[in-house]
Amino acid sequence: MKILKPSFLLDKDKFHVNLRSLIDKIDSEVNFRPHFKTHQSLEVGKWFKTHNIESITVSSLSMAQYFSDQWDDIFISTAVNLREIEGINKLASKINLHLCIDSLDAISILDHKINTPINIYIEIDCGYHRTGLELSQKHEIAKILDLISNNKYLHLTGYFTHSGNSYHEKSSEKKKIIFKQAVNQLKKIQQTFADKFPHAIISMGDTPSLSIIKDFNLIDEIRPGNFAFYDVMQYYLNSCPIEDIAVAVLCPVISKNKERGEIVVYGGSVHLSTEYIQKNENKVFGLVCKYEEGEKWALPYPDTFVSSLSQEHGIIRTCPEVFEKIKLGDLLAILPVHSCITANLYDKYYLLNGKKISKFRSL
Amino acid sequence: MKILKPSFLLDKDKFHVNLRSLIDKIDSEVNFRPHFKTHQSLEVGKWFKTHNIESITVSSLSMAQYFSDQWDDIFISTAVNLREIEGINKLASKINLHLCIDSLDAISILDHKINTPINIYIEIDCGYHRTGLELSQKHEIAKILDLISNNKYLHLTGYFTHSGNSYHEKSSEKKKIIFKQAVNQLKKIQQTFADKFPHAIISMGDTPSLSIIKDFNLIDEIRPGNFAFYDVMQYYLNSCPIEDIAVAVLCPVISKNKERGEIVVYGGSVHLSTEYIQKNENKVFGLVCKYEEGEKWALPYPDTFVSSLSQEHGIIRTCPEVFEKIKLGDLLAILPVHSCITANLYDKYYLLNGKKISKFRSL
Repeated sequence: MKILKPSFLLDKDKFHVNLRSLIDKIDSEVNFRPHFKTHQSLEVGKWFKTHNIESITVSSLSMAQYFSDQWDDIFISTAVNLREIEGINKLASKINLHLCIDSLDAISILDHKINTPINIYIEIDCGYHRTGLELSQKHEIAKILDLISNNKYLHLTGYFTHSGNSYHEKSSEKKKIIFKQAVNQLKKIQQTFADKFPHAIISMGDTPSLSIIKDFNLIDEIRPGNFAFYDVMQYYLNSCPIEDIAVAVLCPVISKNKERGEIVVYGGSVHLSTEYIQKNENKVFGLVCKYEEGEKWALPYPDTFVSSLSQEHGIIRTCPEVFEKIKLGDLLAILPVHSCITANLYDKYYLLNGKKISKFRSL
Repeated sequence: MKILKPSFLLDKDKFHVNLRSLIDKIDSEVNFRPHFKTHQSLEVGKWFKTHNIESITVSSLSMAQYFSDQWDDIFISTAVNLREIEGINKLASKINLHLCIDSLDAISILDHKINTPINIYIEIDCGYHRTGLELSQKHEIAKILDLISNNKYLHLTGYFTHSGNSYHEKSSEKKKIIFKQAVNQLKKIQQTFADKFPHAIISMGDTPSLSIIKDFNLIDEIRPGNFAFYDVMQYYLNSCPIEDIAVAVLCPVISKNKERGEIVVYGGSVHLSTEYIQKNENKVFGLVCKYEEGEKWALPYPDTFVSSLSQEHGIIRTCPEVFEKIKLGDLLAILPVHSCITANLYDKYYLLNGKKISKFRSL
């Protein structure tokens, strides 16, 4: 491996540690349907298969089409895009496809346009307020369920939520409260309609909660994605120790400014994404590690972070000791703030041994 | 054209209006070297050629390699990446290649490793503080120039700056001050070394200044890029009226929440980028326009903006009147905050007539 320009590096060992530590917590009763929007790679998908995982979550029809080469139980957890019904019918005739519904309007259109068996998850909003029906909308949920039961192609899988509000909480206690409240709300819906739908499951999805919850026996299914890679955001949210972050962007050093204590890398917002974490008065766009080709990256340098980005430039602020060690032309490993968004920018990953693996890209 | 999922749309007429209005201001003495990192497309490059433009700016060797199919005078304006010298030598043997140098260390390495004629722009930091040498570093600049004059392959093109600090100023007066100060600094460097380098040019680059400056006769070259597309950021910076924005991302509506006055589109940070503008207490990730296939998009809806993003979801906050008009499955045209970063996410553009044009993608 001779890396010349910004590249996405994946530590397969760390990936397996992260996956194993989640799997070890999962009861055999609980279905594990990992979200593949994080890695978007058939090759990484194969690594999941070695742990006997059979069902997955994705975020678009295109991604489902890509993974349908090797997976036959796929849930698209973004509210259904009604412009793609033709493609949905086609894919559902080939695999066990699950769609996300959060309104009577959407299911009414599917009711007319679906011509092959399709499974439905009803999305419940348990506090994140992005999409989903609320507990109070029982009347609308009942109508949706009526339509499902009267349509020979539609089948209810169950009720799900994505508690994205856990991304605002650092405290384990608060994350546990968010998790419990969501479980209780999903349980209530499940029980309300249990007479007609006794087999409907409840499914939970966010990495921050699922990383700290020890016992999943209250729920039927989990769908985290980010845990496989983790990132600086999850580290700051106390979801993982820093050494569990399994991905980094390699960036060549192109400029140094001693007076400002700044190092500039070829590696900007098009390589890292503009996601950041606010730390006191600073924006942190990534943490910076020493990297030697063929080896694992080191723990982050102290007092060193990516402080701003332009299209192809990353500005790293650092201390004098670190500044002196880093030379023009060196490669630095930058731990991304949000690995899903950063991974999405690339069409391939490098492994530590230099092997390249390909991935999906939608656009 | 039947758009099913998030797509990048380019209004060729608006592009030509933007290009023409800049060209009309340029004296025949001033070289126009537009920055192609904004569009990254050979096809769009051809439209520039119809205006007799012969030299371009890019931000990476990869992009220079892509454009070298049709352009033979290319400046890579990011500080040279010393890991790519092999590719640089190869490309420079084929076209008239210009590199950016901002340190004695970098030019010393080039001095040993270059084996074909290469042109050098020395970057001067006139206040943006990203990369570049300062006016006070005359001693270092003199040494760089010595190395250049003593190396048979190296040739000095001139001195350049990117006044990215103009992106923080809404007032025309302040932008003019930034522009004038930068011109004065570059002139000073030019004059200091005029004995040995009488033909060295000075070159300026940012869209906010160049959009409002009427007379470029003090400088030898301009290198703006964004002006061809413009975007919501440039609109807020008073660089352009809203109707000059030449690009939009088409996004299908997938969910509506009447109580919150929110519309959700399939179109998230992987389709728009997470760049935003802070407007009072709100983050604005894009402005939202009505769109009918085959037509131009309308002016933005009043009181309507993309208020938050997740990976594939965009949340639009709006008023009751607009909320009622928009239906599930509709396509909305979202004006991006920073068109360069958004365009970079796509491998093709759609024109209004449905024609697709391809573009470069580096990763």
